[in-house]
Amino acid sequence: MDAPTAFTSDQESRAHDAQHHSLRLWLRLLSCTTHIEDHVRQRLRHKFGTSLPRFDLLAQLERHPKGITMGELSRRLMVSGGNVTALVDQLQAEAAVQRHHAPDDRRSIRVTLTPAGRRQFARMAREHEEWVMELFDQVEPERLRQLFELLGELKHSVRQRAGVLDQE
Amino acid sequence: MDAPTAFTSDQESRAHDAQHHSLRLWLRLLSCTTHIEDHVRQRLRHKFGTSLPRFDLLAQLERHPKGITMGELSRRLMVSGGNVTALVDQLQAEAAVQRHHAPDDRRSIRVTLTPAGRRQFARMAREHEEWVMELFDQVEPERLRQLFELLGELKHSVRQRAGVLDQE
Repeated sequence: MDAPTAFTSDQESRAHDAQHHSLRLWLRLLSCTTHIEDHVRQRLRHKFGTSLPRFDLLAQLERHPKGITMGELSRRLMVSGGNVTALVDQLQAEAAVQRHHAPDDRRSIRVTLTPAGRRQFARMAREHEEWVMELFDQVEPERLRQLFELLGELKHSVRQRAGVLDQE
Repeated sequence: MDAPTAFTSDQESRAHDAQHHSLRLWLRLLSCTTHIEDHVRQRLRHKFGTSLPRFDLLAQLERHPKGITMGELSRRLMVSGGNVTALVDQLQAEAAVQRHHAPDDRRSIRVTLTPAGRRQFARMAREHEEWVMELFDQVEPERLRQLFELLGELKHSVRQRAGVLDQE
């Protein structure tokens, strides 16, 4: 089966025929991500009145029941420390998260979900997973598995090369 | 070759073992995109003192020598009309782009690159392509080709399903 190529109204539309295959691949990767993110953002807003950054932050907290530092949150979400602070302030005011000191280090502040925050996130996460499954369900499972593996190789290359290039 | 799975400090770190394969695929796709974008953003800033949105806007204009409307720019870049206006204002002040009326429709304003803007973009685009090639060069060309094809299938599914779901 040939890959569909007839989409012209997004980032991929900027690829010229003569451009290197890697660049075309990057633009296609970018347009896939943007379409999925747009769809998820829209559904989160309509269904739960919430934003993608809030959802992503709750997802990280759910993954760390013992809490996570602000610096680690910033690094994992790849957003600035100031933005993380603003999000945590908001969610704390809504009693979805709490800040507390680590038992072994009084200076280190960690953030955790409250029980209410955990329930709230669980409802959103179930729906979010359904949305993603729906978006991908026109592709055969074996092809999705191959895609997962190939993206692993790409990620490995990017991390290696970006690390090397950053040191130049 | 097994896909590398040992990265734990980004969006993919939020995947649970029990989660549906589609969700894990989405988180891996998202983390690939974020790593590449971060790298490109950093290099654009260091090498050319410019931002990713500015580069993306110039790329769209380069693709449309006859000009493109503000609405079309907003749609193609997937950013709000206000943001596009601000970017075009900036670039016009720097004489990299110009606004003018379409010959066949006096009310329709189109944006084009100036000759200086075109030269400026060409320098950045050459480097940008090199950066992306470097990032991907640890993956065999045949594997990159397969990835391009599979992402085409994924994009097709996402566009179809997102369209259907938006109408619900």
